[in-house]
Amino acid sequence: MIRVTVYNEYLHEKTNEAVRAVYPNGIHSALREALESETVSVRTVTLDSIEELTETLLAETDVLVWWGHRAHHQVPDEIAERVQRAVLCGMGAIFLHSAHHSKPFKRLMGTTCDLTWRENGDRELVWVCDPAHPIAEGIGRFIKLEAEETYGEPFTIPEPDRTVFLGNFEGGEAFRAGCCFHRGNGRIFYFQPGHETYPTFRNPGVIRVLQNAVRWANPIYRVSSLGSPHVEKPLV
Amino acid sequence: MIRVTVYNEYLHEKTNEAVRAVYPNGIHSALREALESETVSVRTVTLDSIEELTETLLAETDVLVWWGHRAHHQVPDEIAERVQRAVLCGMGAIFLHSAHHSKPFKRLMGTTCDLTWRENGDRELVWVCDPAHPIAEGIGRFIKLEAEETYGEPFTIPEPDRTVFLGNFEGGEAFRAGCCFHRGNGRIFYFQPGHETYPTFRNPGVIRVLQNAVRWANPIYRVSSLGSPHVEKPLV
Amino acid sequence: MIRVTVYNEYLHEKTNEAVRAVYPNGIHSALREALESETVSVRTVTLDSIEELTETLLAETDVLVWWGHRAHHQVPDEIAERVQRAVLCGMGAIFLHSAHHSKPFKRLMGTTCDLTWRENGDRELVWVCDPAHPIAEGIGRFIKLEAEETYGEPFTIPEPDRTVFLGNFEGGEAFRAGCCFHRGNGRIFYFQPGHETYPTFRNPGVIRVLQNAVRWANPIYRVSSLGSPHVEKPLV
Amino acid sequence: MIRVTVYNEYLHEKTNEAVRAVYPNGIHSALREALESETVSVRTVTLDSIEELTETLLAETDVLVWWGHRAHHQVPDEIAERVQRAVLCGMGAIFLHSAHHSKPFKRLMGTTCDLTWRENGDRELVWVCDPAHPIAEGIGRFIKLEAEETYGEPFTIPEPDRTVFLGNFEGGEAFRAGCCFHRGNGRIFYFQPGHETYPTFRNPGVIRVLQNAVRWANPIYRVSSLGSPHVEKPLV
Repeated sequence: MIRVTVYNEYLHEKTNEAVRAVYPNGIHSALREALESETVSVRTVTLDSIEELTETLLAETDVLVWWGHRAHHQVPDEIAERVQRAVLCGMGAIFLHSAHHSKPFKRLMGTTCDLTWRENGDRELVWVCDPAHPIAEGIGRFIKLEAEETYGEPFTIPEPDRTVFLGNFEGGEAFRAGCCFHRGNGRIFYFQPGHETYPTFRNPGVIRVLQNAVRWANPIYRVSSLGSPHVEKPLV
Repeated sequence: MIRVTVYNEYLHEKTNEAVRAVYPNGIHSALREALESETVSVRTVTLDSIEELTETLLAETDVLVWWGHRAHHQVPDEIAERVQRAVLCGMGAIFLHSAHHSKPFKRLMGTTCDLTWRENGDRELVWVCDPAHPIAEGIGRFIKLEAEETYGEPFTIPEPDRTVFLGNFEGGEAFRAGCCFHRGNGRIFYFQPGHETYPTFRNPGVIRVLQNAVRWANPIYRVSSLGSPHVEKPLV
Repeated sequence: MIRVTVYNEYLHEKTNEAVRAVYPNGIHSALREALESETVSVRTVTLDSIEELTETLLAETDVLVWWGHRAHHQVPDEIAERVQRAVLCGMGAIFLHSAHHSKPFKRLMGTTCDLTWRENGDRELVWVCDPAHPIAEGIGRFIKLEAEETYGEPFTIPEPDRTVFLGNFEGGEAFRAGCCFHRGNGRIFYFQPGHETYPTFRNPGVIRVLQNAVRWANPIYRVSSLGSPHVEKPLV
Repeated sequence: MIRVTVYNEYLHEKTNEAVRAVYPNGIHSALREALESETVSVRTVTLDSIEELTETLLAETDVLVWWGHRAHHQVPDEIAERVQRAVLCGMGAIFLHSAHHSKPFKRLMGTTCDLTWRENGDRELVWVCDPAHPIAEGIGRFIKLEAEETYGEPFTIPEPDRTVFLGNFEGGEAFRAGCCFHRGNGRIFYFQPGHETYPTFRNPGVIRVLQNAVRWANPIYRVSSLGSPHVEKPLV
């Protein structure tokens, strides 16, 4: 059983009619529906209950999925650092859409993770660059999204280990839409689609990507603490 | 002085009226005009005279620029191997557009370098992903090309060291349009724009990219032969 | 069931008493013993029977393991190319020790794969750089080999996707001893230990690495042919 | 003129007789001597005067060189963040030896940057992996250090863009001794040699590496602020 914890800040859905129409029970509920299965259990946490993201919960989380947008600054630094440490210990992490600017992602990348953006409801095509990557399994050549927020380069991240998807927006932008990183013992996937006003997380292709990503990020090795061991004498 | 050798197969220009209209003296002449300066000398070679690509010429070439399309198979294997070896010794190499399928590029990459393609004269935007990369110097955010051949993913290359440009095509494709690699002692740049029926090599942004790429690929270290040294005893 | 094919040139064992003492039934038999299990089947091929490496056999091989040394040049180019294509289609490949100079490995890397070498029977420590990598599972901090052939840098390969192991030789060399690459749809692992005069392939740590590598390289996606698809019209 | 700022915490030299014997005027003075030339100016800052590392000084610094060991925690978070931002804007940064645990380096890497260590005065050989890399220029095959602190893997950093040097320690460890990264617009080099009790920064090979690294890290592109631009309408 892969134990997934979904964090969603859950603000837009409560204050914006258009968002509520798409995700009446919150983005976290849509993500739960997308991911929960016989082999994947899902727990959800929202900004209101963010103190639930304790050391213990993170230690018992195999893969953390993160969606946040306008309240990144309300995530306590202590929790951001805790998430970073959990990833370095081996927990998988999937950052969705505007989570490019979340505290844990920026800490793990070491960069600003800035990008260019427009909200025009552009059609996006998400192309597979790397068909043999486990996260692209079953996707075919591309995913078509009738409307998404447009993200553009430069996307200020470290060079990804693997660029699995590229996005084409009808207004003219191109974007590295799916990027893999490993940091410490943990695997990290950033996926660009998922604006709150569009039903992206109900798209079968997107759901498949998320399911694949959870399996890919599920740790095979994990430590309970980090540190620089001092060795008195040569080991051999 | 950086010594550039431009290889252009020079077939389309002699047989296709539309191509001749764009490049009356051949693509190699346009590339010469783009590159020649007080600090860069340019020599050109075409398929008709490909035997000029001797060991000696390659040893005296700092950066080789390659354009080929429909006669890749007419390039002798021996010359392709010679070019590969020269790059591994330290010569820089820039492969343009359909040279993704040229013998030297495929040998250096180790993959098929396949991609998807369409000829619809799509508008392309070539976006800068990595504004601090020397090849992006002076480009700003993007280059706009009114018409190009469309190239699409998956582009079957090894993960590039740096992805400097992404292309967006109006028909919907996205493509890793500018990719850097190092192999042995040599630096390699692949650049996607440059179809024979469009005046791409007269676009000021494209010209700037090519000039930058020549400076970037100019070797600082070069050996005259390759091999695996046998050492009798520990060196120290 | 993972279907492994082991290629061993099988020359040293027949002509050198010291090698025969270590591997009386050939290195391929030792590799079979190391790998065969309830979930892994192993077939072996030697230089004498290299024509068995047909398109069909490669299509039915999940992971190819390759050991060769003094007869690389006797492997027909056609077979080397066939192996390269099979990897690009998705077959996994593990190249051991002096297979750094084998034709298929050099084709896949695009470089000379040269290195420095000495035969002094140095003690080697193979250190884990990346403990969360699937190939390092269960290894602990290092593998100790009482005697190995010494390999030294520069090892002229493309920058690996992941450097999993570093070797320290008592005579003073350091070497990237375990390197992962992906090329096309296939996964490639190079592992440096395995000189014919030492019982390296009977070392439990080495055996564990090989078993891990087979699981890691086992394809999840595979195609039966390669090519650049032409698309008449935009796909959407 | 390349403007270098050297930060040295300057504590060991004032309290430990053995260190003072090696670096009577502080490690920063040795680094100044190593780097200052007709084309490189050097300014030094120590922990006592760390508030000199203002936004203004960093904006006027082309390459920052950092040595710290036991007082990493005394570097204010605000200054560490300022250094990180300066690198992302384009400033080069060279982190020496125990600066692997400095706040700015850990922030830029996003990982713990842990490693294993021993102080036995081992002989170290620093091997060149990548002879064509600008930082290896003029080094030959290796640098021999009669005594260094031993650092061992796993070194918990992101996969480097380029691994330029590998270290072999006589006690048995191997280590990625010279690693290049780019983050945002800045170039980063980590170099492992440089323990305070040994005259490493007087070694001609080490000095050459540092001089090369300063030239390599000198920015060609730099911005004065960071951010995610919002674009109202498509740019074209």
